[in-house]
Parts: sequence; structure tokens; C-alpha cells
Amino acid sequence: MTDLQTIEEMLEKCLPAASEGYGLLSEAMRYSVLGGGKRLRAIMLIESFRLFSDDRELEKYTAHPFACAIECIHGYSLVHDDLPAMDNDEFRRGALTTHKRYGHAMGILTGDALLNYSMELITRAGEELEKNKPDYYMDNMRNFMHAARVLFTNAGAFGMIGGQVLDVEGFGDERVPDREMLATLCELKTSKLFEAALCCGAILAGADESAVSLLGDIGRLMGLAFQIRDDVLDVTASFEELGKDIGSDEKNNKATFVSLFGLDAAKERIGELYGEMKSKLEVLPGDKTAFENLFDKLFMI
Amino acid sequence: MTDLQTIEEMLEKCLPAASEGYGLLSEAMRYSVLGGGKRLRAIMLIESFRLFSDDRELEKYTAHPFACAIECIHGYSLVHDDLPAMDNDEFRRGALTTHKRYGHAMGILTGDALLNYSMELITRAGEELEKNKPDYYMDNMRNFMHAARVLFTNAGAFGMIGGQVLDVEGFGDERVPDREMLATLCELKTSKLFEAALCCGAILAGADESAVSLLGDIGRLMGLAFQIRDDVLDVTASFEELGKDIGSDEKNNKATFVSLFGLDAAKERIGELYGEMKSKLEVLPGDKTAFENLFDKLFMI
Repeated sequence: MTDLQTIEEMLEKCLPAASEGYGLLSEAMRYSVLGGGKRLRAIMLIESFRLFSDDRELEKYTAHPFACAIECIHGYSLVHDDLPAMDNDEFRRGALTTHKRYGHAMGILTGDALLNYSMELITRAGEELEKNKPDYYMDNMRNFMHAARVLFTNAGAFGMIGGQVLDVEGFGDERVPDREMLATLCELKTSKLFEAALCCGAILAGADESAVSLLGDIGRLMGLAFQIRDDVLDVTASFEELGKDIGSDEKNNKATFVSLFGLDAAKERIGELYGEMKSKLEVLPGDKTAFENLFDKLFMI
Repeated sequence: MTDLQTIEEMLEKCLPAASEGYGLLSEAMRYSVLGGGKRLRAIMLIESFRLFSDDRELEKYTAHPFACAIECIHGYSLVHDDLPAMDNDEFRRGALTTHKRYGHAMGILTGDALLNYSMELITRAGEELEKNKPDYYMDNMRNFMHAARVLFTNAGAFGMIGGQVLDVEGFGDERVPDREMLATLCELKTSKLFEAALCCGAILAGADESAVSLLGDIGRLMGLAFQIRDDVLDVTASFEELGKDIGSDEKNNKATFVSLFGLDAAKERIGELYGEMKSKLEVLPGDKTAFENLFDKLFMI
């Protein structure tokens, strides 16, 4: 499986040095992205690429910058979600949230800078591919553009951001959301970026449409299982284990899979989803050990 | 000159319909971008393209989506600048600011969605170019990717967002900024996007490096002159003329070109910059009437 340390190093290198730029912005960008995290989306993207291609040069010029970009997008979404007007969280990954550490305005601007940076990374990678590998460029530019479109569509108003809108606006204090609403919310807020990770990796490696579509399905199942797992951990784990405030869903009066289904049924559902994603994985080509290990690690709880 | 109404229609069409998507997000995106405005950046981008190319098909597939994208970027930056943690403004273009109208959380998310949408527009345009005009695609993809990189670099941490960081963090209430700081701030906050507009248009039309560089210079001069003009209007115009709170710089205890240089010297400086940009324009090819008219309209005050 893609080494977590390799991804950390890739991210460290791709982000601007803390001393560069204006005020504390570069430092805050690094603080927000490099402060730990499982790098699930980056790993999924790279491993999805590897199911369809063993061309490590192409991987370096395409899947790696996309992996960094998706971590920047994930990072910005956390920074903005934590803001006082949103979830108003003080801790993340065992440390102060970005706005708590750098101030409210900087929280907004750091998130903006990270989202923008994801686009800088991808367009710069496109230019470098053209300059350094003109033969690859002609063959792969179409996939490159397609993957970029998929990534930003999934991250945008009809994907992740749409989910955050529903989360903030749709679930008022008075209103109890039902199971269907919760599923839609999770589909958008969590699954869309998981789906993007798996689809982008496959598209960049030149996978055909049916394989990309199957990976999209797996991404959606993973997103759902991951969100249920998150809700379970919010009630069963400690602050030390989680690195953030526990019981924050309850505090924010948020409906979760646990509050709606109960703890046991939530855990059971993770098991079912785990089975479904494993059986879908079987249809795909390549060495699937990395994904099997990832599923086991995340969803055998 | 590019018709303002044409650009309005282009923007209306490119943004999601108000009824689409989640909650009031699409409506708020439209509210934030379509509420008037001079569309300077879109006009500059398209007119810059036309200096170097009269291929209206290529313009449609490249300069038009870029023009919409840059207006989305400009729009998001205004929405986030107006937030309570930033300038805390209540009015913009004669109407309530986005967060005043749709709430604080929606202000943040609408800005995010617009920035993200700019990349959706560009990547979708890249895909459409490839699908509908494969011959153009092979010839122009390099310029397309280069222009996208320039746009997001200028909009990002080392461009516009960096300027906003300096504006929020660098100019505390206690500290009086000097002329050099003010120039840097304007260079980043305003000029970078003007520069991007002119450079992107030229790059998309296949202009050579020296022409692109000259347009970058003109963009910087225009940005500076435009900011000085804005500072002048902030003290001389009425709410009705301006469509936003007047005297807001003074209210926020912000140093401006007027507070540092005085009103007369500020106006004089606009005149000097106007002369400089006109003499640079002369070196460029093509029909420059549109730019001459634009300079006259904006800077003959």
C-alpha cells in the first residue's frame, strides 16, 4: 500500500514553505494540511491509479499532484467546517483548529488559499507534463482534463459544498432529519470526495468507463461506511483517540447514523457495506491487496 | 468593445439555475455574481484575446469560459471580503451583501462554491473543446493549461489571497501603513487579477511571451489606477453613486491612497498611470479602440 510517509513528504514538498508568501498564510496552510490525518483520499487516488497502470513516471506527473490537490481540498473543507459560523470546533487532530490558532479571518483565507492551491497544483502539473514529457502529454492530456473536471465537480456546489449547505441550513435545531436526508447529506459531504479520489486515479491511468463507474460505486460505499464509522467513534472513542472534541454531534444537536439507527445497527450497517465494497472490488483488474487492507483497517470494527 | 449585456447573458447561462442544487446555494451564487458590476475583468480578458485573434470559435471555447471563471473568482473574493470577520460590509452594488442576505455560513459556502465553480467552468470547457473541436484542442491545449495556471496563481496565496491576508493581518488598528505597504497591498489585492485577465486572454489567443508580459504591465498599472480611483470615490461619491457604504475605509481605519497622499495627489497619480498605460498599449498589435475607450471611461476623472 502507498506509504503514508511518502504522501506526507509529497505534501510537505508541494505546499509553499512556511517562510514564503504573505503574513502567516503559508504557515497556516501547512498547519491545516500537514497536521496528521489518514491521507485516505490521497492513498485511494494513487492506489486506484495503480490498479490500471504501473507507469511510475505517469503516476508522478499526474496521480501525485492530484493526490496532493485532493488533500488540499479536504483540508480546506475541514478548516471552513470548523469556523464559528459552521461547526464552531476548537480541536482537530489533537491540535487547535486553524481559526483558533490563527484567527477567524485567517481561517477563512487559509481555506480559500488551499482550495485555490489545489487548482494551482493541477494546472502546474499539466504544464510540467507538457514541458518534460511531451509524448505523454499528447496521450494523456484528455484524461488529465477529464480527471480535473471530475474532481472539481465532486468537490463543488453539486457535491461536497452542496452537502455542507444541507448540513448547515437543512438541519435546523427544531427539525429532526430523517434517514433519507442523512443519507443524502453523507453522499454529498463525504462520499463525493471519496468517489472523486477513486475515479480520478483510474481516469488518469486510462481506465475504461465501466471500471471508472465501478470505482465510483466503491467510493460511495466507502464514504457512507466511513461516515457511519465516524458517527460511531464520536460516541465510543475518547478525545485522545479521536484528537478532536467528542460528542460534538450531540453538542451541535446533529442527527447521526447512531442517533437515528442506534449504535448496534450502525455497526452492523458498516459490516454490510464492507461486504458490498469487497464484492465490487473483485470485478476490478490489478493487484487489489492495498484496497483489501484498507477496507479491513477502516471497516472491520 | 465587448458588450456588457453579452457578458451578463454569458454569466447568467454559465451559473447553475437558482432552482438547481441544494438549499439556496445556487440562488446565492447567482445573487453574488449577477448583482451588477462592471465586468471589467471579463471584458479585459476577452478584449485582450481579440488583440491577437479574430477566431470567434476559439474565443467561444476558451476566452468566454475563462471570462466567466474570472468573474466567479472576483465574485467569491467580494463575498468573503464582506464577511464579518473581514470588512464586515452590509451593502454591495446597492444590495445586501451575500452573508447579510443568506446568513453567515452561507456567505462562506457561497464564496467557496464560486471559487470551485471557476475551476469547474475551465475544466468543462477544456473537455468540450476536445470533444467538439479536436483539431483546435491539439493546437491550443498548451495555451489553455498555461492560461489556467496563470489565472489561479494570480488569484492565490501569492496573489490576490495573499493581498487579503496583508489587508486583514498586516494593517492593524495601531499601525499606520506606509506608501510601500499600500502599493504592495494594491499590487496583490487588485492588480493580480487585472494582470491575470489581460495575460489569460492573450495566452489563449496564442500571443507571444513579450506581448503577454507587456499586457501584464498594463494590468498592473490598471489595477493600481483602479484602486486609487476606488479610494477617491470612497470619499467623493454618494451611497447612491457607489451602491455600497461610503467612507467605509475611514470606518475600518484603513490607510488609502487618499489618506496617505491627499485627494489631489491621488487624482494626479491616476492621470500619470493613465498616460503610462496608453503608451504601453501603443506597442501592441490589433485594434486597440476597446482598450482606449476603457481607459478613458475609467481613468479620465
